Amino acid sequence: MPIVSKKGQAMPASPIRKLVPYAEAARAKGIEVIHLNIGQPDIKTPQNALDAVKHHSLEVLEYSRSEGSESYRNKLANYYKKHGIEVDASEIIITTGGSEALSFTMATIADPGDEIIIPEPFYANYNGFATAMGIKVIPVVSGIEDNFALPPIEDFESYIGPRTRAILLCNPGNPTGYLYTREEIQKLAKLVKKHDLFLIADEVYREFAYDGMQHHSILAEPDLQAHAIVVDSVSKRYSMCGARIGCMISRNRDIMQTALKFAQARLSPPTFAQIASEAALDTPQEYFDDVIREYSERRDLLLEELKSIPGIKVAKPQGAFYCMVELPIADADHFAQWLLEDFQVDGYTVMVAPAAGFYATPGLGKNQVRIAYVLEQSLLKKAVQILKEALSKYPG
Amino acid sequence: MPIVSKKGQAMPASPIRKLVPYAEAARAKGIEVIHLNIGQPDIKTPQNALDAVKHHSLEVLEYSRSEGSESYRNKLANYYKKHGIEVDASEIIITTGGSEALSFTMATIADPGDEIIIPEPFYANYNGFATAMGIKVIPVVSGIEDNFALPPIEDFESYIGPRTRAILLCNPGNPTGYLYTREEIQKLAKLVKKHDLFLIADEVYREFAYDGMQHHSILAEPDLQAHAIVVDSVSKRYSMCGARIGCMISRNRDIMQTALKFAQARLSPPTFAQIASEAALDTPQEYFDDVIREYSERRDLLLEELKSIPGIKVAKPQGAFYCMVELPIADADHFAQWLLEDFQVDGYTVMVAPAAGFYATPGLGKNQVRIAYVLEQSLLKKAVQILKEALSKYPG
Repeated sequence: MPIVSKKGQAMPASPIRKLVPYAEAARAKGIEVIHLNIGQPDIKTPQNALDAVKHHSLEVLEYSRSEGSESYRNKLANYYKKHGIEVDASEIIITTGGSEALSFTMATIADPGDEIIIPEPFYANYNGFATAMGIKVIPVVSGIEDNFALPPIEDFESYIGPRTRAILLCNPGNPTGYLYTREEIQKLAKLVKKHDLFLIADEVYREFAYDGMQHHSILAEPDLQAHAIVVDSVSKRYSMCGARIGCMISRNRDIMQTALKFAQARLSPPTFAQIASEAALDTPQEYFDDVIREYSERRDLLLEELKSIPGIKVAKPQGAFYCMVELPIADADHFAQWLLEDFQVDGYTVMVAPAAGFYATPGLGKNQVRIAYVLEQSLLKKAVQILKEALSKYPG
Repeated sequence: MPIVSKKGQAMPASPIRKLVPYAEAARAKGIEVIHLNIGQPDIKTPQNALDAVKHHSLEVLEYSRSEGSESYRNKLANYYKKHGIEVDASEIIITTGGSEALSFTMATIADPGDEIIIPEPFYANYNGFATAMGIKVIPVVSGIEDNFALPPIEDFESYIGPRTRAILLCNPGNPTGYLYTREEIQKLAKLVKKHDLFLIADEVYREFAYDGMQHHSILAEPDLQAHAIVVDSVSKRYSMCGARIGCMISRNRDIMQTALKFAQARLSPPTFAQIASEAALDTPQEYFDDVIREYSERRDLLLEELKSIPGIKVAKPQGAFYCMVELPIADADHFAQWLLEDFQVDGYTVMVAPAAGFYATPGLGKNQVRIAYVLEQSLLKKAVQILKEALSKYPG
């Protein structure tokens, strides 16, 4: 029998999916599982985006251009201008989700054996794409005590070697919720220029910044044209995860011409979803004001409720909609499984994302979980109360 | 300035796109360019598929499952049953186009340096995906004299070595239009079993078989469960190229579990397009009867018209909607460019796809072009007449 590839064997399974069979078994026993584990927002997609697809007048559902439809890219360039980022449509390639933007970016800048430095904890799928391409992820540890702020720049520099190709950031961070300051971005900009590296920023949570704080895009940094590559997506911004539309942005012409070759090989991004995404750009500011107020209230409620649990540490999120929590336990994988298998309060239990999967360094994050605050407030409150009671009874 | 990856540099540019600037320049001069070069059908998408998207009732455009929506996969399994292929929904992963199915398949079975044997000429993007993954394409030459039938099985066997992982077929073929016989499939089945290889079949043109001929899926072969992987797509079947929905099918559990890890890393296939694709499965047989009659008439017309051109050789297509033509010229790239730059008949010229890009062996196919018969008959006739006149005047 022929066997699978070595890289296929090495591909990490999703850290969240491992628990799915236990959640299904709990549900089969009649237990309601409250999901604190996933980043699927409950927020409604803007109506104009949904309506644009309802009112489509296509007779032949044709390929779009490989780089995405002309009208969408032009309108998207305007969106970035409104956010203080001067980009031209020719500096944007529309991708099938932020996932594909990341995968085009990695393929464009790195060969098997090359290295990309990433502050950890980080979005678990970075590992997946890197493994698929034989790229080594070099983690730089950030700490819950500092809210996962940028580690000392010397730490980054100490890992730079002949195979280093880029530093990759998620800003604001999944799973950390950390929003990098202008000064942190500038330190990284200086470092990548010094060592002739790329600086990649996954800015898909750009709009989700709280307490009046400002998001700083690497595209707004001067003199970084040759180095900066941004990965973006409509998924979280407009609660359109199922559209599968993102983009890759860079002012480096060589990068964009090379990325386009990867884009051409897969022909085009999805047409209906581009129609929805283009219409979504007309979403009024009030939509975002409402959404950000809602997430911000949820975050405050979550932090307030978590405070009452003895022995836990929480990183205060300033953006995105995740919160990293350190629990007074030894093994979050075991705890998460126990929650689903052996625990309930009046027919309810919770599902959390064990954080070890967000670290590349073995052993780190074993007592941490990621909580996504994408639930309405009463349910979120209930979930934390269940978590509290669970911790008081957990035998592990 | 940091530079692009070696594999990015090695990525082939699309053999067709190279000509696009010349076509644009011709159009700017007021010349009408008739496209014989692309596989974008002019056939209307089934109305029920378009309507299903118009009537969607989504409020939150959520991720689907990574392996595709449950209801679509179940219905798709029925579609295959109707075509004599017994597959279960669990043996199907919905992908973002046939492109992604191919890319998951290659990643699942081959590591950098591994080899995949492909009869040439072949779909040019096979080269793109292989290059992106560092996989070597080993071509086995098929000839226009035999209508590009399967080369002798000994030719395949002579290329099998320690790094060989699979044989890849396109059936019916793009760009050849060749439909493999049951006997040819059986010879390949025997060979892959003997050498413990995978047999991958790109069956996206399955429905397009003419003259009452039958398409033979590798999934219908007995004892090939561990070896057979099929790549499929709705793009051509329902004239839904812009949906970006395909699938990967195999009864080999290890393969599907590994492919699922790649699928999970990119989260999910597009949701709207899955709605359209699921509805498309209800397309009545008359739609296909009409479409196949139309393509078959176009093919007959094309062959008839081509016959009147002195000095050319044509492979008779039995499926798909492409036709390979050998011209009495030395360099089809130059000829195709000349057609756009220096030739016109009453304000019209034609754009053809030079065939060298469909070969991996350097120098092959230089006097061949691929013609896609996706135009209505009067335009197709006109295009061939222009081609005939061009050949009589071409100075090259």
